[in-house]
Order: sequence, then structure tokens, then C-alpha cells
Amino acid sequence: MSSEFDTGSAVTAREGEPGAYDGELGEGWRIGGGINGGLLLAVAGRALSQEFAAEGDRPGHPDPLAISAYYLTPGEPGPATVRTSVVRRGRAVSTGQASLYQDKDGEPVERFRVLATYGDLAAVDGDVTTTAVPPQLPPPEDCLAAAQAPPSFLKHASLLERLDLRLDPATTGWAMGRPSGNGVIRGWLRMADGREPDPLLLLLAVDALPPVAFELGLPGWTPTLELTAHVRARPAPGWLRVSLTNRTLTGGFMEEDAEVWDSEGRLVALSRQLARASAPQR
Amino acid sequence: MSSEFDTGSAVTAREGEPGAYDGELGEGWRIGGGINGGLLLAVAGRALSQEFAAEGDRPGHPDPLAISAYYLTPGEPGPATVRTSVVRRGRAVSTGQASLYQDKDGEPVERFRVLATYGDLAAVDGDVTTTAVPPQLPPPEDCLAAAQAPPSFLKHASLLERLDLRLDPATTGWAMGRPSGNGVIRGWLRMADGREPDPLLLLLAVDALPPVAFELGLPGWTPTLELTAHVRARPAPGWLRVSLTNRTLTGGFMEEDAEVWDSEGRLVALSRQLARASAPQR
Repeated sequence: MSSEFDTGSAVTAREGEPGAYDGELGEGWRIGGGINGGLLLAVAGRALSQEFAAEGDRPGHPDPLAISAYYLTPGEPGPATVRTSVVRRGRAVSTGQASLYQDKDGEPVERFRVLATYGDLAAVDGDVTTTAVPPQLPPPEDCLAAAQAPPSFLKHASLLERLDLRLDPATTGWAMGRPSGNGVIRGWLRMADGREPDPLLLLLAVDALPPVAFELGLPGWTPTLELTAHVRARPAPGWLRVSLTNRTLTGGFMEEDAEVWDSEGRLVALSRQLARASAPQR
Repeated sequence: MSSEFDTGSAVTAREGEPGAYDGELGEGWRIGGGINGGLLLAVAGRALSQEFAAEGDRPGHPDPLAISAYYLTPGEPGPATVRTSVVRRGRAVSTGQASLYQDKDGEPVERFRVLATYGDLAAVDGDVTTTAVPPQLPPPEDCLAAAQAPPSFLKHASLLERLDLRLDPATTGWAMGRPSGNGVIRGWLRMADGREPDPLLLLLAVDALPPVAFELGLPGWTPTLELTAHVRARPAPGWLRVSLTNRTLTGGFMEEDAEVWDSEGRLVALSRQLARASAPQR
């Protein structure tokens, strides 16, 4: 049986139309005003992964090494078409482009566009030099489960039913109406149905936590303009640790940096997004 | 008289061919195996800035807020064509795409492709909340000028003649054959001809210092696969401070994060790139 994530991000190559993939954005991936941006990224990421699959003598480049999404209009539950194009096929890496469209009043509306470079993380894994330190978190059982979030929040967040998300209570002041202002949210993440992480799932993971803006006292919607993720290694099975940080708000824009660590303590993905932030409520 | 940067990044809209811009990559912007990636970004960035200029009642979106470049083949001195397309024009921001081509044996070869969201930083400046701290540097006169770099390095780096670059001696062990391994290079930056910084110049600034890989003991070429820059504010005139950091090398790939601070102590640009890194020499 297919996992919720694999079903939710599935795409099928359209017969006789190269580069066209059909998918379905599920009701179960809603957050705030639309479909979660990480799930959208995984849908386009999966289409590109299929585009760069091994063929004949040509080695496959199935894994996103770097992927940049520019979000245009909110994704909605319903059918979606991903159109990919190959920018360059190389020996070690390949670069592609993809757009996701949904029909609105009979016209295709572009939801977001992606540029990405793909490779084979199985071929590059191993050698790691790092000064990065994984986030220190209380054990999952001492963290705040998403199910404990305010009902007003859960109502617009069917995404949270797909996730087993445990937030460090030191970073959930916002849930009690007392945001710390620290610009940090961190927690444990795995899929509720036990689906183990892989490079495509990391595209969801970098955008799956509540926006770090909440902990800055900005409870409104913070739409992502751009998100770039780097996948650095294939994650080991088990819990992921995710940390979000923000340092600077300028004139209504903020960055949100995400790090994803696997159960073996490796930094497996990095992302940064530029989001719009509404002014703090007083 | 036009500055070196304005001449080096100039593009001219081609008559009767919407979205096509002609430019010339100058010999004076060479570094290592090709034209500096930051200068290339500024060339494409300028074409998009012209594409999103004010027209009639439509307000202009002249400034890159987020720009992601995927590098395909090294740029070489000589003529170049930028082809832009508008992805979406919005009220507050607009998104576009651009590719830079150079002819090789009579065929256009794509050097890199860009997605970007533009806006008007003059309209959003002002309100800043930050926990970021500018890099602490000795005064410029106590730093290492690029002219003091090893001649073997300068020979392939005509870019350095365009810059007044003063590196913190605490981060230049690599220049003496004793890299610290710390993964940090920082310094002062301004243009040698006195051209003051603006948002387009910041696209050069994020990729103008020696690669942070040098200070990790990786003296080889570290070609950029992807670079995303966020421009957060219009910089004040005067010296810029730039810091580069790396934390993690995995299987031949590394990230390089850049921060650019202006003379008034504001964080004006952030970037991250994914680069290939060859194994350390022993």
C-alpha cells in the first residue's frame, strides 16, 4: 500500500506528451490559505526525478541537490499538471525546470515555477566534514504534539494529520499567545503513517513546521515568495529534527532558514525561504 | 562617465525582439576558469530590472528581492545575449526568468538560467527588526588588500582589479598556505573606481570574495551549481562588509553562505550557494 506522502505527491507521465505529468493535490495537505508549499515542491520534485531517471546507458540523477521554487498563486485541492523541461543533462548532475498548473475557469493557472539541479546522492554519500551542531531537543514524548495546537489553527491545517510533529516547548510560546520573539521553532518530525524519509520527503520537511513568524509574534499568513532547498545526503530511517530560524525582518519581508537532521545526527537538508510578513499585532 | 560595474553589466534591449538584451562580458571580470558568477548574475539581474521598469501607470519593480541562478557552463569574455520572460506581473512584486547565452561555433550555448522575484525596495525600506550582528573586522587599513594576494592567484583574477577588497587577516591563512580550516572569510568591499553600492551591485558582492573553500584547505576551483541571493534593503554609500561561511562538506558538495552589510550596519543581502568542492590536498 502506498504511503500518504507517496500518494499525495504522485505524478503520472502523460502518454504522448513528453514532460507533462498529471497529479492531484489532496485536501489532506492544506495549511492556511492553500496547499502546503513543501508538498507542492515534492510534487514538482518527483516529476523532475522521473525526468532524470536512468535510461539505457545513461545513469540516473534521481535526487534534488538544489531546488528553487518561486511561488506565484496558492495551490488548491484538485487536479494539477506539472510540465518539466530539461535544461542540461550532464555526467554528474542534470538541471531541469518545472511548472505546476491548475485549471481555473478552464484556463491553466501557474502555481509556481522551479529550477533544480539533480544528481545521485547514493554516489556521493560518505565523506562529511562539518562544524554544524544538531538542534538540542527534549525527547519527543516531552515535546508538544501538533494535536495539542489551538483548534482554530488545526481547522485550517489538515497537513498536520499527515505528520507526527513534536515541537520543543521552549519554542511554542506562540501557541499560548506568548511568542518569545526569538525567531526559532524546532521539533521532531516523522510521517504519521510511518513512511521513512528520503530525499523527496525532505522537500516537504523543510516547509512542514509552523512558520517561524509565529514565534516572532506575527500570527498572520506568511506567504512564501521563494524557497531554495539543498539536499545534502540520503536521510537514515527514523525521526528527523527540524529547526527554523529567522534573524531579520525588513519592510514586510523575512527569511526563514530550515535545517533538517536525520536520526544519525547528519545535516541532510538546508533551506532558506523569503516570505512576506505582515506587521506585528499589538 | 560610466563606472566599470555599470559598463561591465550593461545590457541593451534588442530592437523588435522583446525580452532579448545584448551585453558583453569583459576580460576584466575573469576569475579562475571563467567570468565571475556574481558579475554574470548582475548582467541577468539588470536585464530583468529593465523588463520590470515602470511603464505608463504600472509601477516599476526594479530591484531583485530574490534571485536564483543555476550555472550550466562557464561564461567567457565576449558577446552575450540575455533572454528574459515575464512569469507574473503583480501589484507589489513581479517574477521573471532569464537565460544568458554565448555563441560557440555558431550555436548559442546557455551559460546559466535564473528565476527571480522583483519589487521596489524604495517602497519597502524602513522597518527593520533583526538579531543579526555585523561581522567584526579590523579597520580596512589593517586588512589584507587583494593586491597582496599570491601572483599565481592574481594572474587568473582580473576581477580583483575592479574591486577594493580588504580581507580580515584572521581569515587569510590560505594565502600563506596555512588555511585555518574554520570555514570563514570576511572583509571590506568597495569598487576600485568609487562606484557606490546599489541592489544590482549587491549581486556581484555576494560572490566577489575568494571562495570560502580556500580557508578550508581546498585550493582548487569550486564551481557554483546554484546561487540564490536575497536583497533586503538598498545599501547606504560607502564600504560594504561581506562574510562568507561554510559549515558542511558532503560528498564533494559544499554550501557557501554570504552576508553583506552596508556602512550603516544594516544586513542588506544574504546569499547561499551550492558548490562542488574537490577533496582536500594532503
